[in-house]
Amino acid sequence: MTDATLRDLTTPALLLDEGRMMRNIARLAGRMDGLGVALRPHMKTAKSFEIAHRVTGGAFGPITVSTLAEAEAFHGAGYRDILYAVGIAPDKLPRVQALAAKGCDVTVILDSAGQARAVAAAGVPALIEIDSDGHRGGLAPGDPALLEVGHLLGTRLRGVMTHAGESYGVRGEAAHSAFAETERAAAVAAAGVLRGAGLPCPVVSVGSTPTAHAARDLAGVTEMRAGVYMFFDLVMAGIEVCAVEDIALSVLTTVIGHQKAKGWVMIDAGWMALSRDRGTAAQAVDQGYGLVCDAEGRVLPDLIVASTNQEHGIVALRPGAAGVMPDLALGTRLRILPNHACATAAQHPCYHVLAEGPEALRVWPRFGGW
Amino acid sequence: MTDATLRDLTTPALLLDEGRMMRNIARLAGRMDGLGVALRPHMKTAKSFEIAHRVTGGAFGPITVSTLAEAEAFHGAGYRDILYAVGIAPDKLPRVQALAAKGCDVTVILDSAGQARAVAAAGVPALIEIDSDGHRGGLAPGDPALLEVGHLLGTRLRGVMTHAGESYGVRGEAAHSAFAETERAAAVAAAGVLRGAGLPCPVVSVGSTPTAHAARDLAGVTEMRAGVYMFFDLVMAGIEVCAVEDIALSVLTTVIGHQKAKGWVMIDAGWMALSRDRGTAAQAVDQGYGLVCDAEGRVLPDLIVASTNQEHGIVALRPGAAGVMPDLALGTRLRILPNHACATAAQHPCYHVLAEGPEALRVWPRFGGW
Repeated sequence: MTDATLRDLTTPALLLDEGRMMRNIARLAGRMDGLGVALRPHMKTAKSFEIAHRVTGGAFGPITVSTLAEAEAFHGAGYRDILYAVGIAPDKLPRVQALAAKGCDVTVILDSAGQARAVAAAGVPALIEIDSDGHRGGLAPGDPALLEVGHLLGTRLRGVMTHAGESYGVRGEAAHSAFAETERAAAVAAAGVLRGAGLPCPVVSVGSTPTAHAARDLAGVTEMRAGVYMFFDLVMAGIEVCAVEDIALSVLTTVIGHQKAKGWVMIDAGWMALSRDRGTAAQAVDQGYGLVCDAEGRVLPDLIVASTNQEHGIVALRPGAAGVMPDLALGTRLRILPNHACATAAQHPCYHVLAEGPEALRVWPRFGGW
Repeated sequence: MTDATLRDLTTPALLLDEGRMMRNIARLAGRMDGLGVALRPHMKTAKSFEIAHRVTGGAFGPITVSTLAEAEAFHGAGYRDILYAVGIAPDKLPRVQALAAKGCDVTVILDSAGQARAVAAAGVPALIEIDSDGHRGGLAPGDPALLEVGHLLGTRLRGVMTHAGESYGVRGEAAHSAFAETERAAAVAAAGVLRGAGLPCPVVSVGSTPTAHAARDLAGVTEMRAGVYMFFDLVMAGIEVCAVEDIALSVLTTVIGHQKAKGWVMIDAGWMALSRDRGTAAQAVDQGYGLVCDAEGRVLPDLIVASTNQEHGIVALRPGAAGVMPDLALGTRLRILPNHACATAAQHPCYHVLAEGPEALRVWPRFGGW
């Protein structure tokens, strides 16, 4: 990557460091190989065929999606084994059936008798969502409704799934490992309840990026789901799942002004380019709307995007920082590391891909919608 | 509008109540007529040709934009008088020149000698940004740099502009009126400095949605800029610029689950559909990620989107609310009023337009990018 290739881009622009992404992909793939569990990568962060191709090694393997628009797009690109991992609304079942009619194996998730009746009537396979940590939806493994839902699904029951969303709120490998065991124990217990009643439960699916990187034992689990690990972000670095140097995504921006008396540098990346996500606000180190790097991606110590408007960012030293504001002249290019890769990427129509070596920038489109 | 037309939509979906929007447009147009000041509506919120057409009364009148992509799109649609109201980066000037070469009168803004030299060399007209309230960029009217920048621009100097972004942080007509006077006084003072030195200053441009609705006297001002007023939002209602019933934008969503013991209703509108904006968090009434209405748009008292993940929202009673959680069955359609219309609209590819009467829903595309 040379600065000359970046100079041609209109800012703000979303940059993807392909080398870092490939190392992140290899890291989790290696872990899952070691644990003997299949990976079903979550494509909600990437929303890109080029990235999906690299994550699945060109094998069009199993994937997870967060919208039916993603399921339809990825099926069109050749993926046939898709988990739609948001609780199914009954009125979305015709779209699931239409995909199935085209040869796509789409599985939905649910946690209620009402959904199970609609899904069974539609002939759609489903996983029952299990609540392992009180984060969001799902049935507790001991909830009597679990068997009711299982019996309603009958032959459409394919297994159970859980997601320890609360693992994002704790720091360090030991804490994430404990959540990984919480996920595993809840999913395996729920599978045991269903199997004990004579119901089929081939799939035991767990996952989140923190737990996927810390799980020590996945006995009884058949697949792991994770998504943001391809890129990582400041939230993941803040809870020690990755280093700041692993973050593969950044927003290229240009200095457009100064308020020197206030120590402010104005940039052309506001919340439209960075997103409104303030995921690090609750962490030990608040990164504002993102951590500032030079055009080559080297972190400028203690420099953050302190505030944003729609198309303006204000760069300033972190409150209490001992450092000195660097001289960032009008027109200087900077890169901003994002709090939350999913949210920042979603603000952009494409990735500008930085390859290692002198290759020109490539453009990989992203898609969105529902 | 009938529920049957909404039933056909895939959720989440962005709804625009055209009747409310037209009343909001008429309200500010009437105010500006009364004050004898031209309106240069800001299209950064709408990013839609159909809405621009309604705001300018079909006259292709002067507009404000926040990106050169908007300027290019609106010029392609017939608009010829465009203010690009984000401090100009010198390397964006070739795009401005290309627009000018096609017959578009694009004015840029700046607040430094470095920008003024580049802009004068490119032959592009500019307004000098004036800092009236310490919110973001701009030169104070008394800053000696004002005259330096004015002289550097020479014949390219078209005037001054300011924006009281701090007016969003205060509540009530009296407070907004005071900020309107702050805007007016700063811009008029700066214009006086420039004119006193023999420089031309035909344009004196001010504006924000709160000040536009509260200004009592705009003597010396030639134009008003405002954008979010077309839609309004909970932030604007929270500072009493509008009523909740004036908000023209909402996100249609479907109930996908329950955690009854916790008082949670799960919906399929997460931050991808609502945005991460938490603009009401700093207000007297925190609306979470949005205020919940029924499918017809009637507010459900004290019901808010308490938290979000990418494609999940959790609806709950406002903390401390005395009310009772309504029974919202699986599949129920709801509408969520947004904290910040600019941010929520930006998450969607189009508006689904609810007309008054039994007309079918129409779709108005939105554009984005830079």
